[in-house]
Formats: sequence, C-alpha cells, structure tokens
Amino acid sequence: MIKILDCTLRDGGYYTNWDFSKELVSTYLESMNMLPVDYLEIGYRNNPMKDYLGEYFYCPSYLLEQVKEASDKKLVIILDEKNVLPVHVDNLLKPCVGIIDMVRIALDPQQFGRALKLAERIKAMGFEVGFNTMYMSRWREFPAFLEDLRFVDQVADYFYMVDSFGGVYPQDVIETINLIREKTNIKLGFHGHNNLELGLINTLTAIEHGVEIVDATITGMGRGAGNLKTELLLTAMNAKDGLEVDFNALSKTVDGFSQLQQSYGWGTNLPYMVSGANSLPQKNVMEWVTQRFYSFNSIIRALNNQKQKVKDN
Amino acid sequence: MIKILDCTLRDGGYYTNWDFSKELVSTYLESMNMLPVDYLEIGYRNNPMKDYLGEYFYCPSYLLEQVKEASDKKLVIILDEKNVLPVHVDNLLKPCVGIIDMVRIALDPQQFGRALKLAERIKAMGFEVGFNTMYMSRWREFPAFLEDLRFVDQVADYFYMVDSFGGVYPQDVIETINLIREKTNIKLGFHGHNNLELGLINTLTAIEHGVEIVDATITGMGRGAGNLKTELLLTAMNAKDGLEVDFNALSKTVDGFSQLQQSYGWGTNLPYMVSGANSLPQKNVMEWVTQRFYSFNSIIRALNNQKQKVKDN
Repeated sequence: MIKILDCTLRDGGYYTNWDFSKELVSTYLESMNMLPVDYLEIGYRNNPMKDYLGEYFYCPSYLLEQVKEASDKKLVIILDEKNVLPVHVDNLLKPCVGIIDMVRIALDPQQFGRALKLAERIKAMGFEVGFNTMYMSRWREFPAFLEDLRFVDQVADYFYMVDSFGGVYPQDVIETINLIREKTNIKLGFHGHNNLELGLINTLTAIEHGVEIVDATITGMGRGAGNLKTELLLTAMNAKDGLEVDFNALSKTVDGFSQLQQSYGWGTNLPYMVSGANSLPQKNVMEWVTQRFYSFNSIIRALNNQKQKVKDN
Repeated sequence: MIKILDCTLRDGGYYTNWDFSKELVSTYLESMNMLPVDYLEIGYRNNPMKDYLGEYFYCPSYLLEQVKEASDKKLVIILDEKNVLPVHVDNLLKPCVGIIDMVRIALDPQQFGRALKLAERIKAMGFEVGFNTMYMSRWREFPAFLEDLRFVDQVADYFYMVDSFGGVYPQDVIETINLIREKTNIKLGFHGHNNLELGLINTLTAIEHGVEIVDATITGMGRGAGNLKTELLLTAMNAKDGLEVDFNALSKTVDGFSQLQQSYGWGTNLPYMVSGANSLPQKNVMEWVTQRFYSFNSIIRALNNQKQKVKDN
C-alpha cells in the first residue's frame, strides 16, 4: 500500500517564513487525523541562525510536544544537509526521540557521501531515515553519486527522487526509477513540483512503477510554484482506486490554506513555467515574483538570458 | 506540424458573459500575431436570446471586421448545436464569409446525426468545419454515435475529442484515439479541461498519438476549472521541441488575463477536482463556486450526494 506524506508546514514555510497561526495548524492536524495520510512532516530542525525564522524552522521541544498531542499520524522532521554536521545530530535530534518517527535529509547529490555519514548517526538514534535527493533531472551528471547509491540501504529506509526544478515528465520519472534500480533495492519516494502542472501525473506514474511513498501539500503550498496538491492526489485516488477520503475534513483544511494562498500567491505562473521547463533554479524566480516589484515581462527576459547564458540587459 | 487553436475569448466568455474590454482584446490580438498559434476562436454566433449576453456570444459583423483588421491569424467561430438548426445557418454565417476560416460545432454525441446535417450546410458555404464532440469519457455508451462516425470525414475537417468533465487520463486519450481510428481517418483534435491538472499531459499525449490540432486558452480561462493554459503549452513545446516563442508577447497577454482572473477566480479547486474525477457536470459546480455563497464544504457534500445518487441533505 502506497504511503502518503504531507509536508505542508515544512514546505509551505518558504512562504510564511515558517510561521503559522495556531488556528490554522490546529485545523490542519485535526483534518489530517481523519484522512488517509501516513506521515506529516512538520518542519526543519536547525541550529540557531542570524536571521529571524519562525517556529516550524526550528521545531523546538514545546512545539514537537504540542503537535504530538494533537496528531495521530507518524511525524517527520527534515534536516538540510548543507547546514548540519554529524556532530550536531545528537543535540538536534534528542528532543525528537519518542515524538518524531522519521528524519529526512534534504541533500545535493554531490554531497551524497556526507549525507551517508549524517544518516548513520540518525539511524543509530532509532529513527526511520529518508533521503530527499534533489535535482533528479541532472543525476546522470554525477557518476560518483550514482556509484555510491549502493550504500544507501544500509542507513536509510526511503530514498526520494526530488524534481527540484519542476521540469520532469512521466517518462523521466520512469527512467530515473530504472537508473536507481540498477544500484539499490531501497524503498523509493517521489517529491514532485508543479511548475508544469505535472505533479499529479508524475506522482501517479511513480506509484505505478513501484515507488512506495509520495509527498504532497495542501493547496500545493511550497517553495516557488509549489507541490502536488494533497487534495488532488486524494481526490484522484478516491475516484480511481476507491481510497476512502473524508471530503469534509479535507475541505476544512483546504479552506484554511486557500485563504493564505490569496495573500502569498503560491502556485505556478509563466515565470515558474519557464524556469521549470528549462531546469533553471526557482529560488531567484520566487524572489522576483513575490516581491511584486518586477513585471512578469522583465522576469521572463531575465530567465531567457539565463537560459541563453547572456548577461541581463 | 501540430496546429494550435486559442479559444480564450470564446471559452473565457463563460466567466465574463462574453464581454471583454477593447484594451484586453487589442493586447490579446497583437500578442497572438507574434506567437505560434494557428487559429483564434473568437466567440459564438447565435440567434438572439432573451437574457443579456455580450458581444462575443453573438460576434456581430462590426466585431468580426474589427478582429479581422487586427489579426493575422485564421479566425474561428463556434455554433452550439443545441441552439442552431440547419435553417439558421445561412443567416448566421453569411456575415462570416471572407472573415472566418473555420466554423466549429459544439455537440452532444447523442445528437451526432443532427450535427452531420448542420455541418453539410456549413461546408457548402466554403468554411473549414470542426466537430467539438463532448463527453469523450462516455462515448462507449453511445453505439449509434460510434457507428455514424464513419460519415464525419465527408462534412468535417477536424474531429475533436472534448474532455467535458476534465476527468480523463493520458491512457484514456490513447484509448479514445484508437476507438475513433476504428471508424474514420479524419484529422483529430483535442480540447482538454484542467480539473485534475492533466490538461498539459493529456494534450501532449494526444499530439504524440497523432492528433493534429489542440485547443488552449490564455491563463486557462474557460468554463469551470478551465482549460489547458496556452502559455504552458507554448513554454513546454519551446523547451521540448524548440518551438519558437516570443515570451515578451506571451507575457503581455498573460498579464492582462491574470488581472481578470483575480476577480473571477477560474482555475481548479477542490470542488472541480471532485466533479472531474467523478465525471460530474461542472456547470452546477461553476454556479456554486462563483456565487461564493456556499462553502466548499457544502459544495463537496452536494457533489458527494450526486456521486452516490442520494438527495442533498
């Protein structure tokens, strides 16, 4: 049976700086208790940073306990490999023991060796471990990473393909699964973005080809163009496979996040489509779009220049 | 070479009651002149109706001439088979001669016989003829229609599959193409809706399997959840197939319609997902959603009742 992980609070935090109102989170957790979702990823754990970042960027003990109290689901936090060394693991994760079921690692495939070491420490503390490995469309450019893939099942439970640019098509998903399967039999996951509105079909294709866990977020809330929408995945699986869905519970939490969406405006648009289709990083695009200072026109011009590798004019 | 038909003004009219400002239309036509779009469907031709309906519902002569003046593209109007008899054709289409290149017929497959007669009259006036045949997901339920399909190439140039509920998947598109191919070799078209965000992948699948003309609208503007977005199709074909796209021209017209979208709110959401996934008509859903009187929750409840064929509670 396919497992669904909802990471609305973690991935949606890119828009709210990881602050969410108590009411919104409470409705979200209640709704999730009624829905066929297996894991909730609630945020990052991080060492203190200079800039202000909200609760769900750090997930302090009191927050972990509140969520645990309110939720029947398996809980997940994620570590960003580039900010965390193995020596930090004990401090960061001790408060999670007994509360958090899975710890995921977001990683650049070029740092795969470092991530393996990190995972070893995490696994030793008794957590399930997931690898969220970025840039799946470029993995063939990293032979050392592909070579080392065979070590991953010793330290991890799930190995995710992340469509970081939001530019992969169903055929690419199938080819990437085959590429991994040459190296390891670890359980696979898929995290899709929605720049080209391919989140659903890529995810369903992944499931059809043996992926065992998939990510989604309510209203697609997430960095840049956002993610596969949880409500779309559940509605499709309800109609296609008879998955039981409490649509009242689902629409309550969708309503809450839809209101936030009116202010923050996540979702795809022409700049995100162009960045996705051409595998350009969406971090810049998100800054340009959300500032509302540049016209789409000038963003498109800048992206075209990136694409053709010429200087902005 | 695949042909693209943009029907923003025709299909978008469901939201604006077929009124559009002169500025918006002028930017749209100018942009389209710069883009690799072959046909523009600008509206309906209709006999006078009792209720108020805007210019693009009737496309009077002065409007046809203005658009012809401003546009380099092949122009299209559509007739709704249920409102038009063969005896009306001369009156409705005489003003179109020399201006309009293609006349499409929107039809229920159960009225296919009537549509063939209508098409005969239209063809005799020298127009290209397109059949926009609704409810593709239910065609197997209409054996008389399937049997009569073999007559269509005598009176029409294009035969469109319309995903009226927005619920078909790529595999369904392939199967429907095969179903038609048993009966006729007419050139095929595809008109996708976006309830499940499958507009792009269904359209690309259709093209891959020999469909020769596809519909799209700027920002997806169109009845209910709306259509495949023209900007998404062009961006994908630019990145995948090297189709030349003037992104400045594209983003100018996208900007204009995006502003309208803020007021009218077309695009998919949970109620449209549920209606699409379960092949429920989106006309009711659109009324409920746009009135903003009912909560999504109560709409979902009503849809669930329709799905289970019980009375509203």
